[in-house]
Amino acid sequence: MSATIVDPRSGEVAERPGHRLVVTEPLVLDSGVRLGPYTVAYQTYGTLNAERTNAILICHALTGDQYVAEPHPVTGKPGWWSTLVGPGKVLDTDRYFVIGSNVLGGCMGSSGPMEINPATGRPWALSFPVITIADIVRAQKQLIDHLGIESLFCVTGGSMGGMQVLQWAASYPDRVFSAVPIATAARHSAQNIAFHEVGRQAIMADPEWAQGNYQELGRRPSRGLAVARMAAHITYLSEQALHRKFGRQLRNRDAVTYGFDADFEVESYLRHQGQSFVDRFDANTYLLMTKALDYFDPAREYGDDLAAAFRAARARFLVIAFTSDWRFSPARSREIVKALVEAGRDVSYALIDAELGHDDFLMPLPEYHRVLSTYLERAAREAP
Amino acid sequence: MSATIVDPRSGEVAERPGHRLVVTEPLVLDSGVRLGPYTVAYQTYGTLNAERTNAILICHALTGDQYVAEPHPVTGKPGWWSTLVGPGKVLDTDRYFVIGSNVLGGCMGSSGPMEINPATGRPWALSFPVITIADIVRAQKQLIDHLGIESLFCVTGGSMGGMQVLQWAASYPDRVFSAVPIATAARHSAQNIAFHEVGRQAIMADPEWAQGNYQELGRRPSRGLAVARMAAHITYLSEQALHRKFGRQLRNRDAVTYGFDADFEVESYLRHQGQSFVDRFDANTYLLMTKALDYFDPAREYGDDLAAAFRAARARFLVIAFTSDWRFSPARSREIVKALVEAGRDVSYALIDAELGHDDFLMPLPEYHRVLSTYLERAAREAP
Repeated sequence: MSATIVDPRSGEVAERPGHRLVVTEPLVLDSGVRLGPYTVAYQTYGTLNAERTNAILICHALTGDQYVAEPHPVTGKPGWWSTLVGPGKVLDTDRYFVIGSNVLGGCMGSSGPMEINPATGRPWALSFPVITIADIVRAQKQLIDHLGIESLFCVTGGSMGGMQVLQWAASYPDRVFSAVPIATAARHSAQNIAFHEVGRQAIMADPEWAQGNYQELGRRPSRGLAVARMAAHITYLSEQALHRKFGRQLRNRDAVTYGFDADFEVESYLRHQGQSFVDRFDANTYLLMTKALDYFDPAREYGDDLAAAFRAARARFLVIAFTSDWRFSPARSREIVKALVEAGRDVSYALIDAELGHDDFLMPLPEYHRVLSTYLERAAREAP
Repeated sequence: MSATIVDPRSGEVAERPGHRLVVTEPLVLDSGVRLGPYTVAYQTYGTLNAERTNAILICHALTGDQYVAEPHPVTGKPGWWSTLVGPGKVLDTDRYFVIGSNVLGGCMGSSGPMEINPATGRPWALSFPVITIADIVRAQKQLIDHLGIESLFCVTGGSMGGMQVLQWAASYPDRVFSAVPIATAARHSAQNIAFHEVGRQAIMADPEWAQGNYQELGRRPSRGLAVARMAAHITYLSEQALHRKFGRQLRNRDAVTYGFDADFEVESYLRHQGQSFVDRFDANTYLLMTKALDYFDPAREYGDDLAAAFRAARARFLVIAFTSDWRFSPARSREIVKALVEAGRDVSYALIDAELGHDDFLMPLPEYHRVLSTYLERAAREAP
């Protein structure tokens, strides 16, 4: 199967490998807006068993997508979790049916700012409604219904993916057997919001952004989006990782240039991160996703009582954090664990000793994979 | 006295209160460039005694200036260290002669990108040579010579000011009796450089920057400079301070807007920080100063042996750090202390328990002021 999606680089409509589900029944969003029809683009790996009990839903992070375990159609790089997902791997596709779906509002085929608004025939751009993590999960639920899956054996994901995991467990308690939120938080701190606001302002400061209408105008706010990515990227790595990786190494030279070229390797690396990002991602989608992250706060409607937000949940939980993560520090995971314990949930907590920082959740760290594997083995034995 | 300087807001030449020294003898910069004639704008508070032994030089941070203890001529706000400097205060101007000078390359009257290059009659803009902390200190030394001061009783400053303090002690050992570097580091880490690079890229991404030639063109890269300031500002405050100050408070509303206005107080605060900064600071100067900070690395020419860099120093030192500072953490101050001890220097170290973060060095914290006061009292008793 293949799906028609917009190429984030050229703004042109292109054929991409993949499935898509078009839902005609409108989705009622947290904002009150009714969105529909809408599309959910997804990929699957492995085979759904006859009992439909072996499905694992993988929720992706801010700039991730549904290409979990296969080459990315734009960059050609391996799937973002291909070290974890595949035949014989921790999420063993010989055994499990693994689903990756592009979040609602995303830019890899699901309905979002780059797609055409069927009501106007023009790109949604910023007229696409501002969505929440709960809205994203509502759309995923339609996909799971469509696939005929009564209960997901596991829902997992890191960072923004972890927020979706928490939301799944809270919103659809009967549909999740085990929930594994990784390197995440139950809500953004003021500092998390501040970093996102810098990114949004960087995009909006770019005249090519054109109040969000760049796509129709054949323009691209690449410089603003690159700056946003650079600022965010610093938060994905620990200070120690940056130090070990680059220190104060000069780039292909013995002395500083007394100019504004990249003198230091870390400058060059960061510029590269910004540049390569704009080749695969869309600025309005970035704005939309950062808002969804900032808004996420399941405790809010329970008077800031996070345990109350999880009281209806029935899944068993494994919460995973990484020691060097300063975007969502282990303390943020412990808040989740504490609330789950208070809510009477079965919860395990694994703090993985790791040095890279937030991005460790993408890495094939032996201890991390072992913990996840052991947990899933036990869950599989105890599943109905 | 008054000096003619360029108004960073309008780009127009304006009269500002203050002294300036014009040095005709060229300064040989670390880059090898000979810069001259050049101007050092400065302010003084108190009276130089007959023996000229009561002078304290205050070195300012990245975006500071010489208006240490009097209203800022552009913003009208109190001097940036007026809680510390004044009659009867810790740096008692009834007793000490306090000097604040705008760094070379600055935008408040010293020679820098906004000033006119006498050789061309046009603004220097980015043709102003890239300078180092050592160059800044070389220019300050000319001012101290001009004022007839043989030995400074104390050189102090926070952040980039602290780097100048270290450089003074290393470059002019006979001219400094006591050195008090505050909230600083002996060099930028990869993460420090990375944050600066984000700021530089944000400025350069602004088309109004016009390759640095905005001043002649009557343009201003305000949006890029504001984004740079926002990114930097996050590093000036601790995560805890942002949390206590703003948490997830919404701005003048009960619910999120599902839009791209500032929903959260912290967003609004950050936007304000960006906006007010561009009213008082210049983009090319920001580029130049961030480079000087990134380049600072006195150990480099001694095979990364920081102690060797301080071996010629003769000053006594008080190194001050703040517990919640993550821009230059206490560990960075301890590196300085360790090197000074190895170099055989008389060094005291004060770690101040404080919550704001890097900006604590600007705050009138009782413990901080008491430590500084006690230290200076003893130094005054023991001074020749």
